[in-house]
Order: sequence, then structure tokens, then C-alpha cells
Amino acid sequence: MSGSTLDLICVVDTETTGLNPTTHEVIELGCILFSLSHNCVLQQVSTLVPISGDVNPVEHINGISAGAANGGQVLSGLVQFIDGALHVADAAIAHNAPFDKAFIERYFGRHYQLPWIDTLAINWPRATRQGCNLTELALAYGVPVWQNHRALTDCQLLAHIIQREPMAAQLLTKELEPKVWATWASTRDDKEGQQRARLAGFRWSRPECPAKGVWSRLIHPDDIPALGLEVVVMRP
Amino acid sequence: MSGSTLDLICVVDTETTGLNPTTHEVIELGCILFSLSHNCVLQQVSTLVPISGDVNPVEHINGISAGAANGGQVLSGLVQFIDGALHVADAAIAHNAPFDKAFIERYFGRHYQLPWIDTLAINWPRATRQGCNLTELALAYGVPVWQNHRALTDCQLLAHIIQREPMAAQLLTKELEPKVWATWASTRDDKEGQQRARLAGFRWSRPECPAKGVWSRLIHPDDIPALGLEVVVMRP
Repeated sequence: MSGSTLDLICVVDTETTGLNPTTHEVIELGCILFSLSHNCVLQQVSTLVPISGDVNPVEHINGISAGAANGGQVLSGLVQFIDGALHVADAAIAHNAPFDKAFIERYFGRHYQLPWIDTLAINWPRATRQGCNLTELALAYGVPVWQNHRALTDCQLLAHIIQREPMAAQLLTKELEPKVWATWASTRDDKEGQQRARLAGFRWSRPECPAKGVWSRLIHPDDIPALGLEVVVMRP
Repeated sequence: MSGSTLDLICVVDTETTGLNPTTHEVIELGCILFSLSHNCVLQQVSTLVPISGDVNPVEHINGISAGAANGGQVLSGLVQFIDGALHVADAAIAHNAPFDKAFIERYFGRHYQLPWIDTLAINWPRATRQGCNLTELALAYGVPVWQNHRALTDCQLLAHIIQREPMAAQLLTKELEPKVWATWASTRDDKEGQQRARLAGFRWSRPECPAKGVWSRLIHPDDIPALGLEVVVMRP
């Protein structure tokens, strides 16, 4: 990483047995080492990991049976590869990164020094709205969706999106800069404004926002003019 | 592997700098450890590997620059994983397996004990003809093709085909049994018969066939009745 420019990024995804990182478990880890300067996947892995029970409660979502995770004949080395990748990369990248960060830090029993970038928070130029899920975002970028909810597939969708976005390195780097709260006080009958705010990622009365009774979102200061909304800015 | 039934298979693909395993080099290795009994990808990896020159002559095909292969920051361990997978799996699986086998054995400097199964030789029930290339076969199975000619993508296409074919384990196992030459002597004006023979994988005057001046292919004896051609059988 030269100056503030990202080059080697570690795209990660976890498949889990549920949504709560303190009560549910990782069942599959996926990881891509991607070079932004070469716009190329350098290395990638996924591996099932054993779970404590003999049922995966969300098998209907990710299609991974506890039998495959616990009884499949897997080789060692890939979990260590992911740990190593999180040590050498300039940043960890995930769609809804707080989820994966929580599960990965708990799985490995440590905090990694590298910054985490949440691609869900990025203002992707080709997205139809702020905060698209991964399959919506892939389709907006013309990336065919062949599967989702397997760890490496989700990493690959994200890598393909990054490959097709000419400004990807700048967009990811910008996510490392400080954000502010943009708050917007809507009049009750401004339905058009509310719709615009919603598509721009604003939500009504966020509990984590210091202002109450307003629409708000965290945003890079440079992105405020393009909103087309008269917002009040607050430091987080 | 219990009896003659395959379970743990190693799907492999190599991206190379050309077609000749003695003069060209591997530039990327891909490998999936797949459980047929769980119908599930257990583990998968791909890694770029350095080449001797500073140009990849087939970068226009696989999109891999020599710069990425030689200068990308890669971690060790994944090449060893593939070597390990070729030691524990019941069989190595590839589309046009002789190509990958030649490059892999030269790359690792050894012959592996496991059998190699060429999925190009399989009579896939949903294929439109014998000998489909990988993207044709994927589409015949309704597998979306998002990319090809990157090592792990090609392994994944093959794994998705195997997952969607209920008879996959039997078809792969049958490929381990001995084949015979089926030869067919066409009359010059039997264009319909020649077309049928071609779609069934027969070719005219194969140099490796012991009979000359005939259409021929290697085939499992059980598959001869379904050909609908009056063939003469010869041991290879």
C-alpha cells in the first residue's frame, strides 16, 4: 500500500449457521487476494469448517449440510491461508463487512490490524440505489449471478464488480476517509423528497444518529452536493 | 473410495502460456475438492504461478498478464494444497484431461497414482452432442457461464455440471472401466448416418484407431446399443 492508495485487497465472505456471531458459527470461509493495480484475482480459496451441531439451521439458504461441513474430507492449510491474507492485505473487503468482521474475528480469536471496507456503504456509480444487496449490485454491473450464499461465490461476485468499475480503487480508498452524518428534515407531504432520500440511503430516525426525528445517513463530505437534498451535517 | 465407487474427486484446471506442455508453462492452477456423496464443494483454490518470460502469449485468451503472475503478491501454501488434493482424492477430473494431466505432471515433476477422468469423453445425458466444450456443456445443464479460461472458473463450471447431473457419480465411475474401439463403415452417400456418427463422437480415419478408412471412437461397451449404428468392435 503506497501512500493512501490501496493495491492488495482481501475480499472475504463467511457462511454461517445464523445471524448472531456470539451464538452462531462459521460453516464456510471464502477469501480472494485481489490486485487492484493488475485488476486481477491473484489467489482464492474457500473451505468448509466443522460446526458443533449435526444440523445447519440455515441449510435452506446456503445449501451446506452439517454432514458436509463435519464429515467431508478436507485438507488443512486453507484456514491459515486466510489468516495470512488478512495479515498482508491493505484492506479487508466485504459486502456488509461488520457481519463478516464479527464472525471472522471470533473464529480466529483475534483482531486484525487492517481496515475493513464495507462495499454496502459505497456509492457505486452503476447501482440503482444506495445499499443494493450483492446480487442486485452484480446485475447492475452486468455480472451474471450463477449462485449466491456460498462463501467464495459471494467473494467472486464482489471481485467481478470491482473489476468492472473503473473507479473501484478510488471508491474503496475513499471509504477509509472519515464520514459525517447528513441529516435531512422532511416535511410530511414531501413524498418525492422522501423517496429520493430513501434511494440515497437515508433512513428515518436511525438510533445511532445523534439527531432525532430526521432522515439521516453517514456520508463522505464530498458526496453531499450530489444528494440534491438540503442536509445538516453533524460529526459522528 | 469404497469398492469401485468414487466419492472425493479433485476437479482441476490449468491455465497455460500455450498448448505444448514441453515448451509452454502453467500460469494458473485451479482445484476443487468435491464430495460426490454430499454433492458439495468442500474446498477450492486457485493461484497464479510465476512464468519465465515477461509476456503471456495467450493473455488475450485467459486475461492473465505476466505482470500479475510474476509481480502479484501471492502467499505460499496453495500449490502444496493442490499437490495434497491429488494425493487424497479418488480421481482427478478435468475437461480434456490429457492436457491438464500433462501440464500438472510436468509442473509438479511427478506422476500421481490416482486415475484421471476426462469429462470431455463422457456421454452427458443433457449434452446436445458428444464432445461439447465446457461452456456448451454448462449451458446444456442450465449453468450460467460468467467467465471462462480462468482456472477456478473452469473447475466451478464442471462442479456445477456434476452437481446438476443425477447420474454424475455413475458416469464418472464408468469412465474408469475399459473401452473398446467402435468402428463404422459409412457408404459415401449416407449423409444422415455420417451426421449421426459425428454427433455421437465418431471421426473419420483417426490415426490412433487400429482400423483404417472407417469412422471410429472409443466407447464403453454398454453404450454401443444406443448408438443406432452397426459398428464393428475392436480392442484397443
